[in-house]
Amino acid sequence: MGKNVKTLIWGFGAMGSGMASILLEKGGYELVSVIDTHPQKAGKDVGELLGRAPLGVKVTMDHLKAFGSHPDVALIATSSFVEEVSPQIEFALENDANVITIAEEMSYPWIDSKEIAERLDALALNRGKTVLGTGINPGFVLDTLVVSLSGVCKEVRHIHAKRVNDLAPFGPTVMRTQGVGTTPEKFEEGIRSGNIVGHIGFRQSIMLIAKALGWTIEDIVEERQPIITNVRRKTNYVDVTPGNVAGCRHTARAYSCGREVIFLEHPQQVCPEAEGVRTGDYVVIDGDPPVNLRIEPEIPGGTGTMAMAVNMIPLVVNAPPGLLTMIDLPVPRSISNGF
Amino acid sequence: MGKNVKTLIWGFGAMGSGMASILLEKGGYELVSVIDTHPQKAGKDVGELLGRAPLGVKVTMDHLKAFGSHPDVALIATSSFVEEVSPQIEFALENDANVITIAEEMSYPWIDSKEIAERLDALALNRGKTVLGTGINPGFVLDTLVVSLSGVCKEVRHIHAKRVNDLAPFGPTVMRTQGVGTTPEKFEEGIRSGNIVGHIGFRQSIMLIAKALGWTIEDIVEERQPIITNVRRKTNYVDVTPGNVAGCRHTARAYSCGREVIFLEHPQQVCPEAEGVRTGDYVVIDGDPPVNLRIEPEIPGGTGTMAMAVNMIPLVVNAPPGLLTMIDLPVPRSISNGF
Repeated sequence: MGKNVKTLIWGFGAMGSGMASILLEKGGYELVSVIDTHPQKAGKDVGELLGRAPLGVKVTMDHLKAFGSHPDVALIATSSFVEEVSPQIEFALENDANVITIAEEMSYPWIDSKEIAERLDALALNRGKTVLGTGINPGFVLDTLVVSLSGVCKEVRHIHAKRVNDLAPFGPTVMRTQGVGTTPEKFEEGIRSGNIVGHIGFRQSIMLIAKALGWTIEDIVEERQPIITNVRRKTNYVDVTPGNVAGCRHTARAYSCGREVIFLEHPQQVCPEAEGVRTGDYVVIDGDPPVNLRIEPEIPGGTGTMAMAVNMIPLVVNAPPGLLTMIDLPVPRSISNGF
Repeated sequence: MGKNVKTLIWGFGAMGSGMASILLEKGGYELVSVIDTHPQKAGKDVGELLGRAPLGVKVTMDHLKAFGSHPDVALIATSSFVEEVSPQIEFALENDANVITIAEEMSYPWIDSKEIAERLDALALNRGKTVLGTGINPGFVLDTLVVSLSGVCKEVRHIHAKRVNDLAPFGPTVMRTQGVGTTPEKFEEGIRSGNIVGHIGFRQSIMLIAKALGWTIEDIVEERQPIITNVRRKTNYVDVTPGNVAGCRHTARAYSCGREVIFLEHPQQVCPEAEGVRTGDYVVIDGDPPVNLRIEPEIPGGTGTMAMAVNMIPLVVNAPPGLLTMIDLPVPRSISNGF
């Protein structure tokens, strides 16, 4: 590319600040702006907030000022939802930046926000810029990886993919949205009220697979069940006693021509090993040939998501314009560190 | 694409005829020509040779006539070597066909045939067509799959990938080029004379990984050692007695900045399970995060290669022109069967 890729980060939480740390190790990239509205961050030097030497870039609440640095690409890590990130994506596009976002719903926004997706696509085309939603999941484990494995098959009849992880490192927000630590009764209430959501991204992963394989999906059925622990499971943030909820066993089944063709599982819980459950990522393709893949332990969600977002920068900057998905772009790859 | 993709197959051996069988099950594809010089095939109906209903397409030795059907893409399965397939690729390009070849060396031809690669690239650009070398390995297991996994890493220090397969289904040619059934002494002779070659594709896989990750490779060191069996191993084609050679343990190490950065292993033997060796594909990335992947059993080489070549058709037909590699194109995926 010749010159440094100028990068803006929008949202300086765990993910955004992690992406900044990764970027600062890479040769060929320059972190030019950071947007965050948190009062304890705004106005502070980005390097100092990361525990590094001062960078000379201050976190700002002022979007317009931030885009005055003319970033080539904006990494948006502010929300999981299309409705919430789409105004930010539009603002970035209007300021001539490509966009990479880890908003789960943006990995395939057409399924639940068709109008917004079409508007973003039209705007991106109009500005000659590219928008991509990515992350570890959705974005890789339960979709892009599955799709790439299908390439070795002359026929695919059914796909079963499963991601078993450990929520122990996560804090109160994740505990609440997964129902960790509650009673079975409160878990059911939380599911009904929508306070316990489980995994966000099954519908998007399914549509990515289906689009890649040319399948028409008629129906997607999701199920969320409590994972009741038989032993005490304790983390820095939660203490789950036997009989209570250690996590959410969330699954999704997709149907085509009246037949189940995709089954995705993502049981998320604290300390699964306390009951002998091994963490890992698993893909089983019932096809010709069959494919049976396991990655143990699972690819960690936090680091994986930050790394994937940063690693996609050169592919997005060089991509044709429009709202794209992971299956439209070349295979992801790690950017070398600077030397 | 609207209309059927017209496909020509050049080379109607095990791979070419397998690809034809796969293609005939797909909707949206039409097999318009088959070229082969074998006297028992030329002139025969392709469908009948495949044990199916007559197709109305006869195998021909006449290249010019074959391309009279104006194929959109030519699948070339005639040789492993750039020198041997490049005249066929040029002929296809001059006749306005895109090209997919399973010639192992074509997966990254620049490393050992730079001039030919540049000539093919220029011709492809000039004709507005795309050329791709692919297959299961090189093409996927020890390169594209490895690259895509690296996308989850914020740093990659070393890559170790291994493919353990069973040569039992293969015939006399493979037995000879892998040294199966010979004595340890004759194996060493065969290595020296070049009659025993081991795996073709390590150098190409290494360069695909290195290019994707932005690494400069200074040296590649390959080693070929006999796999001496302790038990009798018998197939339809060979009978290996204890103390003799069951296969070739072929490895390649790549160095960057004086440090080993890639280690690829591909021990190929008959009946590995006779001595408790499990077959599989393995990728270990020493990085942040580390990644530890296993596919057991291994993705079968024959079906995998045929399927990958056919599955890449739509991606190649829609790609920008030039000589491309698997890391330049979107992730592979299985084409649906016709319905």
